[in-house]
Order: sequence, then structure tokens, then C-alpha cells
Amino acid sequence: SSLEEKMSKAYKVLEDIYLKLEKHYRDMMDIEFTIEEGTLFMLQCRVGKRTATAAVRMAVEMAKEGLITKEEAILRVDPASIDQLLHPMLDPKAVKKTLATGLPASPGAASGIVVFSADDAEKLASEGKKVLLVRIETSPEDIHGMQAAQGILTARGGMTSHAAVVARGMGKCCVAGVSALNIDYKAQKMDITVYEGKKAVETVTIKAGEPITLDGSAGKVYLGQIPTIEAQLTGYFGELMVWADEVRRLKVRTNADTPHDAAVARKFGAQGIGLCRTEHMFFGEDRIAAVREMILSDTVEQRKKALDKLLPFQREDFIGIFKAMDGLPVTIRTLDPPLHEFLPNEHGQIEDLAKTMGVSVAKLVQKTEELHEFNPMLGHRGVRLAITYPEIATMQMRAIFEAAVTCANEGVDVQPEVMIPLAMTKMELDKMKAEFEAIAKEVLPKAKKPVKIMFGTMIELPRAALCANELAKTAEFFSFGTNDLTQTTMGLSRDDAGRFLPDYVNAAIFAKDPFQSLDVEGVGQLVAMAVEKGKATRPDIKLGICGEHGGDPASIHFCHKVGLAYVSCSPFRVPIARLAAAQAALADKGGKVASTA
Amino acid sequence: SSLEEKMSKAYKVLEDIYLKLEKHYRDMMDIEFTIEEGTLFMLQCRVGKRTATAAVRMAVEMAKEGLITKEEAILRVDPASIDQLLHPMLDPKAVKKTLATGLPASPGAASGIVVFSADDAEKLASEGKKVLLVRIETSPEDIHGMQAAQGILTARGGMTSHAAVVARGMGKCCVAGVSALNIDYKAQKMDITVYEGKKAVETVTIKAGEPITLDGSAGKVYLGQIPTIEAQLTGYFGELMVWADEVRRLKVRTNADTPHDAAVARKFGAQGIGLCRTEHMFFGEDRIAAVREMILSDTVEQRKKALDKLLPFQREDFIGIFKAMDGLPVTIRTLDPPLHEFLPNEHGQIEDLAKTMGVSVAKLVQKTEELHEFNPMLGHRGVRLAITYPEIATMQMRAIFEAAVTCANEGVDVQPEVMIPLAMTKMELDKMKAEFEAIAKEVLPKAKKPVKIMFGTMIELPRAALCANELAKTAEFFSFGTNDLTQTTMGLSRDDAGRFLPDYVNAAIFAKDPFQSLDVEGVGQLVAMAVEKGKATRPDIKLGICGEHGGDPASIHFCHKVGLAYVSCSPFRVPIARLAAAQAALADKGGKVASTA
Repeated sequence: SSLEEKMSKAYKVLEDIYLKLEKHYRDMMDIEFTIEEGTLFMLQCRVGKRTATAAVRMAVEMAKEGLITKEEAILRVDPASIDQLLHPMLDPKAVKKTLATGLPASPGAASGIVVFSADDAEKLASEGKKVLLVRIETSPEDIHGMQAAQGILTARGGMTSHAAVVARGMGKCCVAGVSALNIDYKAQKMDITVYEGKKAVETVTIKAGEPITLDGSAGKVYLGQIPTIEAQLTGYFGELMVWADEVRRLKVRTNADTPHDAAVARKFGAQGIGLCRTEHMFFGEDRIAAVREMILSDTVEQRKKALDKLLPFQREDFIGIFKAMDGLPVTIRTLDPPLHEFLPNEHGQIEDLAKTMGVSVAKLVQKTEELHEFNPMLGHRGVRLAITYPEIATMQMRAIFEAAVTCANEGVDVQPEVMIPLAMTKMELDKMKAEFEAIAKEVLPKAKKPVKIMFGTMIELPRAALCANELAKTAEFFSFGTNDLTQTTMGLSRDDAGRFLPDYVNAAIFAKDPFQSLDVEGVGQLVAMAVEKGKATRPDIKLGICGEHGGDPASIHFCHKVGLAYVSCSPFRVPIARLAAAQAALADKGGKVASTA
Repeated sequence: SSLEEKMSKAYKVLEDIYLKLEKHYRDMMDIEFTIEEGTLFMLQCRVGKRTATAAVRMAVEMAKEGLITKEEAILRVDPASIDQLLHPMLDPKAVKKTLATGLPASPGAASGIVVFSADDAEKLASEGKKVLLVRIETSPEDIHGMQAAQGILTARGGMTSHAAVVARGMGKCCVAGVSALNIDYKAQKMDITVYEGKKAVETVTIKAGEPITLDGSAGKVYLGQIPTIEAQLTGYFGELMVWADEVRRLKVRTNADTPHDAAVARKFGAQGIGLCRTEHMFFGEDRIAAVREMILSDTVEQRKKALDKLLPFQREDFIGIFKAMDGLPVTIRTLDPPLHEFLPNEHGQIEDLAKTMGVSVAKLVQKTEELHEFNPMLGHRGVRLAITYPEIATMQMRAIFEAAVTCANEGVDVQPEVMIPLAMTKMELDKMKAEFEAIAKEVLPKAKKPVKIMFGTMIELPRAALCANELAKTAEFFSFGTNDLTQTTMGLSRDDAGRFLPDYVNAAIFAKDPFQSLDVEGVGQLVAMAVEKGKATRPDIKLGICGEHGGDPASIHFCHKVGLAYVSCSPFRVPIARLAAAQAALADKGGKVASTA
């Protein structure tokens, strides 16, 4: 007994109205109405909510049917919402038992057996097993394990913890800060207090080797293995992406440190690498010993000897990346983090390392204390390392040049760009440029065809932005490192702000977390200033952004407006950035983005 | 047998020439000449080097004799050189045995008996003994001992270590970073390896209670007691200062946290307090317990109860300062450092505190860990504390208002200015201003005559400078905190930069240490921008500077040029600032500063 049968007159009126509304809004509508004593009363109407899958499909279908233009179709999909399309998701039909809830730190879903150390993750993954890495919290030493795992689960840490940031960068799912976990590394097990509402109802023990499932989009941990549905980048979605690429002006690059990440990003449409961090390469099992030997060196000769061991590894890294990015530009940043990040801080680890390296524990402890910094973010890092120890950057530049020549001679189209981090004066760049040119003169003649390598810098300190006209005399390109630029401009440590930033967002002092969406009023002024000053000195200067903001739609609109040439973001955000860049271009022509989130 | 007798003809020519030269240069000249076979050859002439005492005396005498103008006299004395006139110095005739050499961290000389703890310093000083505080390094908990001591000696730390910065602020002599010291707190003694050149020749042991002498201007440690000569602020020097005051436009205030410092600064000519830090008051023996109780509070009520205990102390502090500064403005900064600075970090101290406070060690450790920050400089401090815990700032503002009313009713002319640290948005200030006005409404009616209290902010983050037009809508004054503004603009931690800043100065990347002399090209741009934007919003906005740069002559020239109303510096730099401000005003009229250093 449908409405049509029961109240045919009212139904007819309703049908007229909703067809008129759909035609007027040219979209799927949510309509509220009531019929009292046979008379229809319209209460409310609004554009209907839909999942990202539905939004993409409807936009593409409506454009194909000629109801809307392609441009309108592009504007109809909220870029932030398509994140869910780019990752595997849990089969909605599967039966699930929730063990615990944490923060949805990195989207996607994954099943695997539990491992409690990065080394175990790597070992079992190399045997073909799917593993989930479970840690109280992660540190840079766990990178190889995170890389090997399907997903990451931590007991501590927020949305900007190491685990969360790295996982998002890798496009791996991550559930962070699950306080109900009680991890016992020694016993190789974890006890999970299971809650129903606020009441603890039982304790489940999961041992290493037992399977669980993570949903990083929802922040959930499930018992056992649950089937997942793969991401779907073709079909309607692929069509929409092609349309987006036709209208956008901004290029989209990716932040990638390995040939694997580079390949993933290329599949997502990345047009080059905007940030290749070299420090992650230093943590590899086969390199870290040489890195530590370098740090513990007392003389330049010792340091050079240790660096000589690293050179072939770095060269191979770059050869792999250049090949994966054949025909596209690759921006490589010289070593950035302070050296103490490469030394262990727990006493047991220090003892182990001392034994391995054949130095006394006392010497190692002394070196660690010497390197300790009160504010490492503002410390001895970036180009400052290269000013004190030029041989480090020299080794890295040599590796880049030699890899480029090797690839070029094998027919690969290499377009390397050497990027100096944390510069704030022209003279720092001049010193690096001198080394750069000396190596170029020595290595490049070995290429069978000309190889062009660019030299540029990051703009990540307010002083660099303020003095961009000076820096541009030496730098051929600028890449805005808006993570650090936000930290310094606002005087806000990303590692510490978690404690009070929620108070700021709650009190509406910030509209959004400035580490997620660029602070246009403040930090944005410095970006705009540096663009203007850089162009004044060097009209053809290449301008890009490689902070996490490069994958945030609102920030991408700003980057378009301010005249950057490209944004660079983590591989899994590349499609989001492509769509946002298209919307920014359309907004220039008066197009209005319709948020359907 | 003088030259006149031996070669009377050449002598006559020489006399003619040097009189002509002195008249031409209107200054004391160094002349080099030779006489060969009766003929005089002039080789070189330049303005003669002189001590600061001589420079002041000659400038004043020449002006009085009409050889030069008063303005020329002012321009002839290098402000940096007069530092030595403002502190006691060692009697140059005394016989001395050098024990060790360190960094000349704070000028002046002092003798006293050695003590190895702040508590001992305070105790013995209260018994009328002159003591020197010797520490491996100092921390905020040692402030009361530093205050009680005649001078400070440390084994570790550079020119910007805690000991050095605080000692300069107090105008006490300090020798820092004396690596030849081997301090044994338990045995209450130190072994000093005495060097001759690079060779260790003996080890001298000094026990607590034995006298030594420090020369903070030379960075020397001497055995035993050596007579000193007091600073001389009258006579020629006093006269020159009067002349300087007649021509300068910039006012000179001081950074002072106690009535004593305020009185010293007033004697040196300070025209108000530009920065009164309230955190040093929190470390007082009679307050720290309540401060810690406040930090450990779990509820707002507990926190308010602890703060109620602090209120009377703070009120008394401000009453003392307002009285010392009768008729002059006093800028009081609300609490700035992160709360963990008020908790001990050594295990023994934590145990003691737990016992005193009646809480478990576990709770105290947990709280300390909770409060730990990776980058405290960019952490939960300044106005951010007041956003999270409004009751702290409220207590402080109430203490200021009540002290002001009490003083006003006793006939004191009070001019308080409440200053909010580390703001970066207008809304932070709006929230504080609302509290400020609520308290004003309640307390000010109790005054028998109108009391006016200003509300303003520090500009110490790049974002604050960039958004100064917004901040000026709420702030009636800006005070540039150029220490922190330098740290954030350059991304340079003052506590850590010691390790590589020398490399930067050596490589001529920086002309000077940017923490000693303002980086005009970079940080200066932000200052100039904030001045312009602040005035655009509020034409009569009051503008000053209270970083350490407020006492640096080159930085003072910049402050004059950019249109600030005042500089504020440590008490002992006030005369330097007065002279530099006068020179800046004269430079406007084309006067040229003649460095005689």
C-alpha cells in the first residue's frame, strides 16, 4: 500500500514538487513533508547526503546525462570525502567483535597477525606473512617494521604522534592511542580490556602470532581476521580524475622516500616527487651502523670513512627512485634531523650498541649527552648540520649525482632537484652551492647525454620567507615546508601542542588545527611574501609546497591562489589533491564547491 | 736628555705638526714618526686608544673647553665600553694568583667565600657573609642563591647559559663554563686543575667556606680575597649622562622583578619597568610549595585554593615594586614559563617533594611525565597557560589591581601595565581582556583617586607581528620580546645554539650573535611590520622592546629608527642604553658615532 495508492492526489502534488526541486537544484534532494487531512505540507528540502562512492557516481552520471557540466561534476565531490575510496575497507557484511577503540589515525583496514617489534614485522613479512605491528608507541627506529606491516596499532599517542604521521605518509592504516591495551613486550602478549559503554566487561589476551583486524578509518580493533574490499581507482572515480586533470593548473607531486612509495604515488597520478627525505634511508638495518659510526667519529677523517660506507647505499636508493620516476622531477632533501635521533636512548640499547660498535658505554653515553637538545626542533639540524659537517651533505650530493649519471646512461630520463633544508641566509646556500658545483664538475662529464640537476631550498623558517629575495639569488626553486613554518611562525611544537590545541579549537581561537589546514591569515602571509620576493629576484623560480598541507583541500586552494606551481603530499592523498586543485582552478572562474561531506 | 734638547729643530717641527693634527682631528692622537739624520718623517697618525674612563673624561673635558660640542662628546664614547664603569673592578695594583679561566659571562669583580648550594648562599648571606655561589650549572631553583651571592661561578654552560643570562640581568659578576673545575657537592669541595699555557701544573682544592675572587669581565678565577674598586657613576660620567638625556628621544626602562632591582635601575636612570617577570616570584621559598600544589591540582577548585595562597605574596611583590617605581610605569608580564619548570627533575628531589606535599612519588613522577615537553620553547606556556588555566592569570591580575589600589590610596603614583606573553591571535587577548575588565570593575572602585591600568601584549612570535593590526584592536601597547622573536623567526633555540652558532659567526654567515645584537635584516623586518600595522589600527599605541637587545647599542639604533617609544634592559645596561639612545638621536641629524673601543 504505497502513498500513491493511499493518497493519490497529495502524491501527485508531491511528485510535481520534487521533480521541480531536483530540476532547480540539479541534485539529489532530501525532502521532508507531511500530509494532514489530505493536504501536503512541504517542511524542508536540502541536497541529499551520500557516501563518497555515491557522490562520485552521481556526479559522473549526471554529467554524462547532460544534467550538469563536467565542471559542475568536479565541484560536486568533496575532496576530503574521497579519502575512504583510496584505501581498502572492511566488508560491511562481515560479523565483527570489537576489542577496543582508539584514534582513527590513518584510514584503511587491514588484517594480520600481531607482532610486537619492528624486527619481527620485517622478518615475518619477508616470509610472506601479513603482520600488524603493535607498539606502546613508535619511534624512527621502527620505520622498517612499519614499512613491512599491513597496519599499525599503538597504545599511546595522538593524531600527530610518530605512528600516525608516518602511517598516513605510507598510506597504511593506523589505530593510535588505544589506552585499553596493556602490552607486555617480554611476554609477547597484550591484554585488552573490553568495554561495553563505559563498563569493562572482560579482558582478552592476544599473543604474538594471533590475528586481529584494524579499521584505521573508524579507530577500531577487531578480533580475528575480517575480509576487506580493495580500493577502486577506476570506473566513475577514474573518469572524474581525468576531468579534474583537464582543468587544474597546479601540478601534484608526492612525498616519497622509497621506490615502492614512488610507484604507488605514480599509480595515483603523482607528477613527480616533491619531497624525498633521506633520513629514513639512514635507519635501514644495513646503514644505521655506519651512520652511528659517523656520529661517533672524533675526526673529519673518521667521519669521511664512515660516510664512504654509506655512499653506495644512498646511490642505490636514488637509482631506484629515479627509475620509478622516469621522466618526472625528483626533489631530494639533504639530511635534516638532529644527529641524536640516530642514537638509542634506552640504557639497554646503549649497552648493546656499545658492544656492537666496540666503544665504551661511557663514551656512548657522553656523546648522547653532548648531543642532547632542549628544543631539538630549533636545534642543530638541517643545513646547520652541513655547515658544521660539510662532508655529510657532500656524500649525499655525490650519491645523487652519481645515481643520476648511472640512470641517464641507462636511458632513464632523470630530473633531480637537490633541496637544502632549514636555510635562513643566502650564505648558507652559497656554501652548499659551492660543494654542489664542485661535485657536478667532477661527476656530470661521465654522463653520455646532458644531465641537468637543480639546486634549491626549503622555506620553513620565517626568516627564510622574509629574506626570500636574497635566498632566490642562489636557489633555483623554493619548496615551502609548511609543517616547520607553522611551528616557527606560531611558536607551536607539533609534538607538544596536542595538550592544549584542543582547548584552542574548542574556544574557537583556531577554526581548524593549523597543522592540518594552513593558517592562511598568519603563516599564509609569509608564504605569499616569499612567493613575491622570490619572483622579484628570479622571475622563473619554481615554487611548491611539501608540508602535510599539500594534501589538504583548503590549503591547496590557497596554494593555487598564491601562484605555486605544484603541491606535494603523501601518496594516498594525491587523488584528493588532484581534485582539490581542479576545484581551485574552477573557483577562479566563479565555480562554487559544494561540500557533500 | 729629552728629544727637545737633542734635536731641537726636528722637535719644533714635530710639535707644530701634532698640534695641527690634534686641532684638525679634535681628539687625542697616536702619532708614529722617525727622525733620520735630523729630518722628521711622519709615518702614521690615528685617534688614540683609551680606556672607557679616559674616553669619558676626555670627551667631557674637551666639550667644556669648547674644543668639541656636547653632541660630539656624546658621539665620542662607545656605549659598549662603558659597561666596565658600571661594575666594581679588581684593584689593578693587587697581586693575584690565577686559578682558572672561563667565559666572561657577566662583568664586574667580587670576592667571597665559596658555597656549593643556593640554600647555603642564602643562609650565609643572611648572616652577613659575602659568598660566591659555585655550581656545575644553575637552574631556576638556584635564583634565591644567585640573588644572595656576590658572584656566580659555573663549570658548564656558555654565554647564554642560565647562569650567564640571570647574572647579567642581576648585574652580578659571573664566570661560566670553567671546565678545569671538578666540583664535588657531597664532599663540599672543588678541585681546580691549574694550567700554565696548555700544561696542567698543579691541582688546587678549594673547600666550602674558603675565599676566592672572580673577575667576570675577564673570565678569571683567583685564589683568595682581592681588593676591588667600586663603580663610579658621578663626575665626568654623570655629566655625560645628563647631556645624553637631553638629546635622546627613546625612553629607557629596565627589566626588573624585585623592588631591589627596581631601585638599582632607578639609580642608573631607568624611566620605568619594561618587563617585570612574575615567574621568579614563584620560586621564592615561601611560595614554591603553593605553586607546586597548584600544578598538582586535579580540579579547578583545588587549583584556586592553592592560588589563593599565592595571591597575598604576589600583591606584596607588586606593592614593593610600585613604591620603588613611584611616578613611573611598570609593565608586569603574566606567568610565562611552562609549568614543568616549577617541578624538580632529580629523583632525590622528587622524593623529598612527595614527602613534603603528602602525595605519592608515583603521582609526582606521573605529573612530571605528563608535563614533559619535546620543545618547551614552543610548548604550553605564555597565554596558552592562561587559556587552559584562566585562574592563574586571574589571580595575578587581581594581585596587580589590589596592589595598585593599596599604593594609590597611600599616595603613590602607580602606572601599572598588564602584559600578556606569547599571544598570536586577537582572540587570546580578548579572553584575557574580559578577565581584566571584570577584575577592574570589582577592584578599582576601592581606589580613592582614579587608577589607570593599561592592557597590552608582547610581540614575540612571527604570527603576532604579521597579525599586529588585529592584536592592536585589543592591546593598548606592544612590547617586542626579541629573545623569543629571534628564536622563532630564525628557528634557533638559544639554549642549544651555542653548539653551532660559533661556526656561523666564524664562517661570517652571521656578523654577530643574533641573541646579542638584533638581526635587523630578518627579525627587524617583523618588528618594523608590527610597528606599522599596530599604528595603522591604533595610532597612539605604545611601543617598546624588552628583549636582551634593549641593552645593545646597535639594536637601540634600530629601535630608534623604527619609531619605538622605549627600550627596556637589565639595570646595569640602563646607562649604556641612555648613551646609545642619545647617539641614535644624533645620528638622525647626521652625527657619526666614533667607536673608541
